[in-house]
Amino acid sequence: MADTANGEPPASTMELFNRIAAQGEFVRALKAKKASKDEVDAAVELLLSLKASYKTAVGEDYKADCPPGNPAPGGDCGPDATEPEEDFVDPWTVQTSSAKGIDYDKLIVRFGSSKINKELIDRIERATGQRPHRFLRRGIFFSHRLDMNQVLDAYENKKPFYLYTGRGPSSEAMHVGHLIPFIFTKWLQDVFNVPLVIQMTDDEKYLWKDLTLDQAYGYAVENAKDIIACGFDIKKTFIFSDLDYMGMSSGFYRNVVKIQKHVTFNQAKGIFGFTDSDCIGKISFPAIQAAPSFSNSFPQIFKDRADIQCLIPCAIDQDPYFRMTRDVAPRIGYPKPALLHSTFFPALQGAQTKMSASDPNSSIFLTDSAKEIKTKVNKYAFSGGRDTIEEHRQLGGNCDVDVSFMYLTFFLEDDDRLEQIKQDYTSGAMLTGELKKVLIEVLQPLIAEHQARRQEITDEIVKEFMTPRKLTFDFQ
Amino acid sequence: MADTANGEPPASTMELFNRIAAQGEFVRALKAKKASKDEVDAAVELLLSLKASYKTAVGEDYKADCPPGNPAPGGDCGPDATEPEEDFVDPWTVQTSSAKGIDYDKLIVRFGSSKINKELIDRIERATGQRPHRFLRRGIFFSHRLDMNQVLDAYENKKPFYLYTGRGPSSEAMHVGHLIPFIFTKWLQDVFNVPLVIQMTDDEKYLWKDLTLDQAYGYAVENAKDIIACGFDIKKTFIFSDLDYMGMSSGFYRNVVKIQKHVTFNQAKGIFGFTDSDCIGKISFPAIQAAPSFSNSFPQIFKDRADIQCLIPCAIDQDPYFRMTRDVAPRIGYPKPALLHSTFFPALQGAQTKMSASDPNSSIFLTDSAKEIKTKVNKYAFSGGRDTIEEHRQLGGNCDVDVSFMYLTFFLEDDDRLEQIKQDYTSGAMLTGELKKVLIEVLQPLIAEHQARRQEITDEIVKEFMTPRKLTFDFQ
Repeated sequence: MADTANGEPPASTMELFNRIAAQGEFVRALKAKKASKDEVDAAVELLLSLKASYKTAVGEDYKADCPPGNPAPGGDCGPDATEPEEDFVDPWTVQTSSAKGIDYDKLIVRFGSSKINKELIDRIERATGQRPHRFLRRGIFFSHRLDMNQVLDAYENKKPFYLYTGRGPSSEAMHVGHLIPFIFTKWLQDVFNVPLVIQMTDDEKYLWKDLTLDQAYGYAVENAKDIIACGFDIKKTFIFSDLDYMGMSSGFYRNVVKIQKHVTFNQAKGIFGFTDSDCIGKISFPAIQAAPSFSNSFPQIFKDRADIQCLIPCAIDQDPYFRMTRDVAPRIGYPKPALLHSTFFPALQGAQTKMSASDPNSSIFLTDSAKEIKTKVNKYAFSGGRDTIEEHRQLGGNCDVDVSFMYLTFFLEDDDRLEQIKQDYTSGAMLTGELKKVLIEVLQPLIAEHQARRQEITDEIVKEFMTPRKLTFDFQ
Repeated sequence: MADTANGEPPASTMELFNRIAAQGEFVRALKAKKASKDEVDAAVELLLSLKASYKTAVGEDYKADCPPGNPAPGGDCGPDATEPEEDFVDPWTVQTSSAKGIDYDKLIVRFGSSKINKELIDRIERATGQRPHRFLRRGIFFSHRLDMNQVLDAYENKKPFYLYTGRGPSSEAMHVGHLIPFIFTKWLQDVFNVPLVIQMTDDEKYLWKDLTLDQAYGYAVENAKDIIACGFDIKKTFIFSDLDYMGMSSGFYRNVVKIQKHVTFNQAKGIFGFTDSDCIGKISFPAIQAAPSFSNSFPQIFKDRADIQCLIPCAIDQDPYFRMTRDVAPRIGYPKPALLHSTFFPALQGAQTKMSASDPNSSIFLTDSAKEIKTKVNKYAFSGGRDTIEEHRQLGGNCDVDVSFMYLTFFLEDDDRLEQIKQDYTSGAMLTGELKKVLIEVLQPLIAEHQARRQEITDEIVKEFMTPRKLTFDFQ
């Protein structure tokens, strides 16, 4: 998985600008030589998608003679430049100019997914007999793709499904934001009692980053410890490094090749923005992230059954991979995976800034001490409070942009208390220092307990999780 | 391996024409927007390579307003069109208009390889203490790449090397031409006493052809029987299906990813002529044919040693894969594989026609009966003889275009007898019927013995050849 949350640099807007210019010429050339409709359509589709990306990244329409960040003196690149910027989301870049973070309602429309509404949450509660996880109650997992209802139908009819999520191991350092999909996936595993596969895309990180194979693989194993520390059931969970598992499975590569036969470079370009200068490993990688969506990629778990429904909880920036997967699935005779999308975890400095493994102050890391947590929250967590106590008491704080409050929505279990805090902070009854103190008191034991659990994870335990084997669960 | 010998359709010249037109526009667009030198260079390089392919395919220079096969009435596309056509060779298409077959001297210049000269053949004789194989004596293996001498240096210093060859299993039907690389490879294995790996590219055939995975894999296993019947030593030979071995090896996929990181789509396009409409599986496949060139793709044989020299005997149409491999090797810290190239085996109807698995009369198949062989040779083998016996006696026949004579150069071991036949046929002393009789008498026992040996190949033997395991050989 590409983990945007870890702070990839944004695609240069100048690069986008140049790509659009070249693609425009290419479309004109195709038309001039009366190329086939399919060829022209594919080229135009890419051109439009590049222009859309440009607009979301730069905040204004592409204009041929007006490169980004370089407005013509005469103001030719004029009026649009003052419009508010739109969000940009793909597997490598998440960008917004709003302190409130990404506008997820707009993103749902753009991605064509569905909102997780109260009705669906109620249904999950009925099906599992469990209170929905706070991530569902609070809209942190906010979007799904056809069809979570189908998964629940099947579940209620005692038909099996399995969970699939993953991580791109780009460094040893993981922060609390990285845990979101895993915390939620563990809950899903517990309440549905289903098997789970977790893909560590060390091959992807090797392809995209300046890493050796050994480094990427080493990060995969280290990160697996933090994932295991989330409490997954060893009897129901298989964690795998792509570099290892590709050479251990009779089913994985066969599915990779099947998918690769059914995606053209044009399609991959349209979905992921690849260029001709990208290496062929990047271009074919999406099939490797897609393959675990099909149950016969895991013969040791599912034997030769290809029909077991897959449910993928992930951050919404991973959606392009699974849009592609869902497009290919029926053409190779497999069921489409269902998806549950989460929002992004904000950086301490605010939802419009980036978390970065190389900037320890941009987030709370899983290795931080109690003291470091206290210092970071007090010093760096962007505040929605007022400039003076008097003003704050009078006008109240703004929870929509306050990072400490945002973090509490992720980690404070008690709904009533969270609501009380929101009211008190908004009214001015609670001061920023008091709000931060609550967060510190939530984070310190959370991280300490994680560290204690991680301490217990021996190499043997990791090895067992990462060994292809049967899993224990009830299947019809 | 793509087996051109099996008769792939040629890339349409109109398609080439359109690609050049679009690429030309693309280069102009890049220059107009002042793209980086690297970008422009890459685009120009592809343009030139497309034009070169066009020229070899169409036989005349590309002219913007003059599509192939459609000369303008005014004769604008004029004079060049009357020039003799040049040969075209890539992994999917081998095309010549000459009854003598491809002009291999020109091909060596165009591919930039070296001719196997008498000095090198003498050296092989000295190093092995064995008489050089008739394929070497007669220029059937005619070209090499740096550096067969290096391999011999190493061998004489008791440094190890290994052999790698392969087959693309596109159908069950194999003809005698398919045996050429295997007959020669067996000889190399015998005289050098080295390990051998044989790749069955069932994944490639699945990607390129209208086959299911199971069909492609089934052909790989069936074809393996014919290969084993060539007499390979089970203690020194590992045959593998890509579909199987990718999921059985801790080394293979790691090398595939390493190679894929070091080849851009631009480069793959330049070498293999891929387009944006090709599936991402085709685009990344060359890395899979490249990976067996590196010894640590086979940890069960070579442990973790990455430095063991590889020698690849193959038909020269496979050279593009290994040009790419040799380019990548030093950048990932591996030795470049050495290559020995063979000429193509001609169809019965003449060197300028195509053999096809779907046309049983285009070649001698390994399943043909003695009677079928006799009928085919008599009826279809293109003759260099004269129209009447009188004319033939007076003017003599032409061995350069006579397919029966060509086949004898491949299969008649006795040099003196071959020379005598050449003299007699050229002088007119030998008639076409007599020449064909010699060929029939050579082919009938050759095929019968092959069939007898193949009969002995049980499923267990195939399974053992295809099981990753240690091989027995002398290594320092």
